[in-house]
Amino acid sequence: MSKKVVIIGGVATGMKTAARLRRLDKDAKIIVLERGQSLSYGACGFPYYISGEVKSFNSFDHTPQGILRDSEYFRTVKGVDARTGCNVTKIDRASKTVTYETQEGEQVLAYDKLVLGTGATPVKLPLPGADAQGIHSFWFPWDVHAVEDEINARKVTDVVIIGAGFIGMELAENFAKRGLKTSVVEMQDRVLPQLLDKEIADLLLPTIKKNNIKLCLNEKTVAFEVTNGIVSGVKTDKQVIPAQLVIVAVGVRPNVELAKACGLAIGPTGCIAVNEYMETSDPDIYAGGDCAENTHIISKAKVFTPMGSTANKHGRVIAGNICGQAIKYPGVLGTGICQIFDMEAGSTGLNERTAKLAGIEYKAIVTPGNDRLNYMPGVGRIVVKMLVEVGSQRIIGVQAIGKNVSKRIDTMVTAMSFGATLQQVANLDIAYAPPFNGPIDNLGTAANCLGNKLAGRFNGINPKDFEAMRAQGGYLFLDVRTAPEVSRNRIAGIPNFVNIPLGELRQRLDELGDKDQFIITSCQIDLRGYEAETILRQAGFTNAHSLEGGMSGWPYATEHD
Amino acid sequence: MSKKVVIIGGVATGMKTAARLRRLDKDAKIIVLERGQSLSYGACGFPYYISGEVKSFNSFDHTPQGILRDSEYFRTVKGVDARTGCNVTKIDRASKTVTYETQEGEQVLAYDKLVLGTGATPVKLPLPGADAQGIHSFWFPWDVHAVEDEINARKVTDVVIIGAGFIGMELAENFAKRGLKTSVVEMQDRVLPQLLDKEIADLLLPTIKKNNIKLCLNEKTVAFEVTNGIVSGVKTDKQVIPAQLVIVAVGVRPNVELAKACGLAIGPTGCIAVNEYMETSDPDIYAGGDCAENTHIISKAKVFTPMGSTANKHGRVIAGNICGQAIKYPGVLGTGICQIFDMEAGSTGLNERTAKLAGIEYKAIVTPGNDRLNYMPGVGRIVVKMLVEVGSQRIIGVQAIGKNVSKRIDTMVTAMSFGATLQQVANLDIAYAPPFNGPIDNLGTAANCLGNKLAGRFNGINPKDFEAMRAQGGYLFLDVRTAPEVSRNRIAGIPNFVNIPLGELRQRLDELGDKDQFIITSCQIDLRGYEAETILRQAGFTNAHSLEGGMSGWPYATEHD
Repeated sequence: MSKKVVIIGGVATGMKTAARLRRLDKDAKIIVLERGQSLSYGACGFPYYISGEVKSFNSFDHTPQGILRDSEYFRTVKGVDARTGCNVTKIDRASKTVTYETQEGEQVLAYDKLVLGTGATPVKLPLPGADAQGIHSFWFPWDVHAVEDEINARKVTDVVIIGAGFIGMELAENFAKRGLKTSVVEMQDRVLPQLLDKEIADLLLPTIKKNNIKLCLNEKTVAFEVTNGIVSGVKTDKQVIPAQLVIVAVGVRPNVELAKACGLAIGPTGCIAVNEYMETSDPDIYAGGDCAENTHIISKAKVFTPMGSTANKHGRVIAGNICGQAIKYPGVLGTGICQIFDMEAGSTGLNERTAKLAGIEYKAIVTPGNDRLNYMPGVGRIVVKMLVEVGSQRIIGVQAIGKNVSKRIDTMVTAMSFGATLQQVANLDIAYAPPFNGPIDNLGTAANCLGNKLAGRFNGINPKDFEAMRAQGGYLFLDVRTAPEVSRNRIAGIPNFVNIPLGELRQRLDELGDKDQFIITSCQIDLRGYEAETILRQAGFTNAHSLEGGMSGWPYATEHD
Repeated sequence: MSKKVVIIGGVATGMKTAARLRRLDKDAKIIVLERGQSLSYGACGFPYYISGEVKSFNSFDHTPQGILRDSEYFRTVKGVDARTGCNVTKIDRASKTVTYETQEGEQVLAYDKLVLGTGATPVKLPLPGADAQGIHSFWFPWDVHAVEDEINARKVTDVVIIGAGFIGMELAENFAKRGLKTSVVEMQDRVLPQLLDKEIADLLLPTIKKNNIKLCLNEKTVAFEVTNGIVSGVKTDKQVIPAQLVIVAVGVRPNVELAKACGLAIGPTGCIAVNEYMETSDPDIYAGGDCAENTHIISKAKVFTPMGSTANKHGRVIAGNICGQAIKYPGVLGTGICQIFDMEAGSTGLNERTAKLAGIEYKAIVTPGNDRLNYMPGVGRIVVKMLVEVGSQRIIGVQAIGKNVSKRIDTMVTAMSFGATLQQVANLDIAYAPPFNGPIDNLGTAANCLGNKLAGRFNGINPKDFEAMRAQGGYLFLDVRTAPEVSRNRIAGIPNFVNIPLGELRQRLDELGDKDQFIITSCQIDLRGYEAETILRQAGFTNAHSLEGGMSGWPYATEHD
């Protein structure tokens, strides 16, 4: 007898499960119940519709050939019975049925296997004025239409986005490109706080500023100002920012009400608990996508990492397992990437905050470089931060900002998925040609530098740590760049600054004096700085350090002579 | 007592070994003997000097700050004694000395450890006329200067490049950009024959043609035409191509004469044999870079893979091992990448030819797609070919052409270095956002399709196999695209062509007739083609196949209605 599979949720996980399942099993009865009116839409691209970079909303719910992915499409093309406007109200595990409401009334469906792809819902801010017109989430198709309608219908000139995560920053770029005066309010001290450590996130600030986005970090939204029922401003703990449109992008929470109500286990993240086969605590019920928890490959912790890419993989794994393939889903690395104008920012694995939370003893390094051979047309900067576990030398996290970040992140996703050590990454046979890379690629450089740091051959100081000590002094700052470079720019406000070009350093060591003093060497990217630090140490200086990242990795104040 | 290290060769491996060694050991006596006048130059960028994309030759042998990397630089900055114009004539392993000639006469140097970084030399074509003026290799700095001088001094309008490998194709692009009439003659049946299988290489042909490069495949050069001592044409077995300048880029051979003469073991590739510590058969002598053999990570075969990136890694490993670090070099994947105008072509691991040579039973697949979400600005095509070992499901090779190839190659370099299976690659937590990827990335798609092929759920036919049977018929060709797509383009000369859009197929199966006939389904990228194949099989058709890559992966004749 053919098995009956009911799938709740018809977007990423749900429709992927359904389509794959049909290809694996011609006889299965597959019914998808979707609450909304749209199936299998691509929400990830919504921000780009705001700027007009994506011209038609059809891009999100039609095939590239212009065919709407509706129930008819799924029936004829995929052989799947996908029903919209079906609000599931109850799962009865004892009788193996789901109850759902439609405009025609309540219906009950029996299942052999049930799949929960119920997704997530944006978090709202329960603040005074939150019900005013003009305050929106940006998650569902109707959010996009509502925002678009408001911009067109009212004289919207000022938009405030609350939250500087992925969606917030993507929206900021696209609102700015549309010509709206755009502000972003973020409670934390940095943009993309889930992804980036502070000193890396701060390297994005010039780009944000240059593109006229007002960024308000360390600011808590406390209320919305409302005029005639319409939002007119965002009140933070520091100021009021005028706005005729507000997007609340402070995160999402998994939709687990149905799962909870039928007694399925909920994990520590608040997501539906699943094992590596994506089975819930009931072996006849699977869960995937934003509503299901993931296991972090490095920390082994349960994490809530809602991503369309993960949801699609979950769907494929679930379909396979319903058909007896016993596919294990390996978990996630919390990978994320974001385009911010001409900068890319990405991260995978643990950052300093999450590494500390996981109790992992680590060392980290910041290494800037060029995204290709330094003399090639189009060359740009990329700054890589890498974290390694002390002892195992296993890499536990990588962040990068700048140009051609995505390929470095994808490479490290792969490396970390296999537990790669520093030396393994340094010796990868990465594709090399001048338009793509230097002969030692940026990841190799980071791994090599971090190896030197672990071995005590490199005493790097992180930019944010140096920023904390910069003004108070108590160190000699030895800039080993050439005189023209130093006259172009230098770190501001250093009490004890000396410039000796690297080529002269071995001959001029006597000028430095006390061999036990705290010396910090520096250059443009800390390649020469590291060389100088080594020269000092080999010459008997006992307290030599260098500034990781040099000028290229320095996000704070500079002087231009 | 400080150890004495002599290094023969002062380019990539040699200078990397020397610089790293100094940082690891302040006391070592380090002497580099370089035959030429230039140290540590970056030959990989030479082709881009021809077009003027790289404006100054200083880019190759100066630091980014404009300091020449000469003996003085290496002495003051790196603490290394690097001597140019030193032609080593003999290694005496018994007395542990090397003999070398300079303008001042013969010298003898003792060593504790010797490093051979003797590089490679371009292969010459011993053909009639080969000594004429205007026929050059393109490998050493003096080659570049000679070519540049000749273009400027004589009325060079026509250049012929012999060999369509990396250097040949990079040169072709750069000569064409300079405005010279450029031809490439290649004995084999494809461009980049080391890297690409035929049907992938052929996808580059429209780009080569569009950029006015005359490409002569399957043509053997037999002589050079010479007028007044200067080359005037290249004679192949098919034609004479006028040329005032000829570049011979048919490969290089390792410089192993010194190693051979002193009795070091030479490997099956003709390179100096080394173990995983880069030690030669004499434990006091290391070899690295182009003169040393590599071990292929997949096939385990010894290979000759001269690459600047590999040479740098070798140097670092050798320096570490001289200092007792016991670093194992893991080998190579034969990775290569090449920019050809707006196309990228890359490869890593085995291709069909080398997989067969290695005796590995494999399956392969060709999967085209978009390099990012299909509706994003700047989207372009990428075609991925993936090879998997039958049984182990271990991926053994990947090729790709199109846009944003390098990140897919680097990701697969990493995956294959760890023995990744199809399922592991399909479930990687690749960085996903619309400007960078689709929710299922191109590598995931390739891995999934190949998994289906292995499991017998997908009967893909490779484009070149279909091309071989196209005209003779004996099959029904079922194009499941929409009518407008079919009217835009279709494969030429198919005897039995039927168009049923995928959405109508389930309803129109009766039109197809005999369920045992040979049917080939197809669409734009073979996503719908695969769906159609599945529908046919599930409906009882016993001989359903689909054309891998569809129109997007089809390099051969098309009809435009």
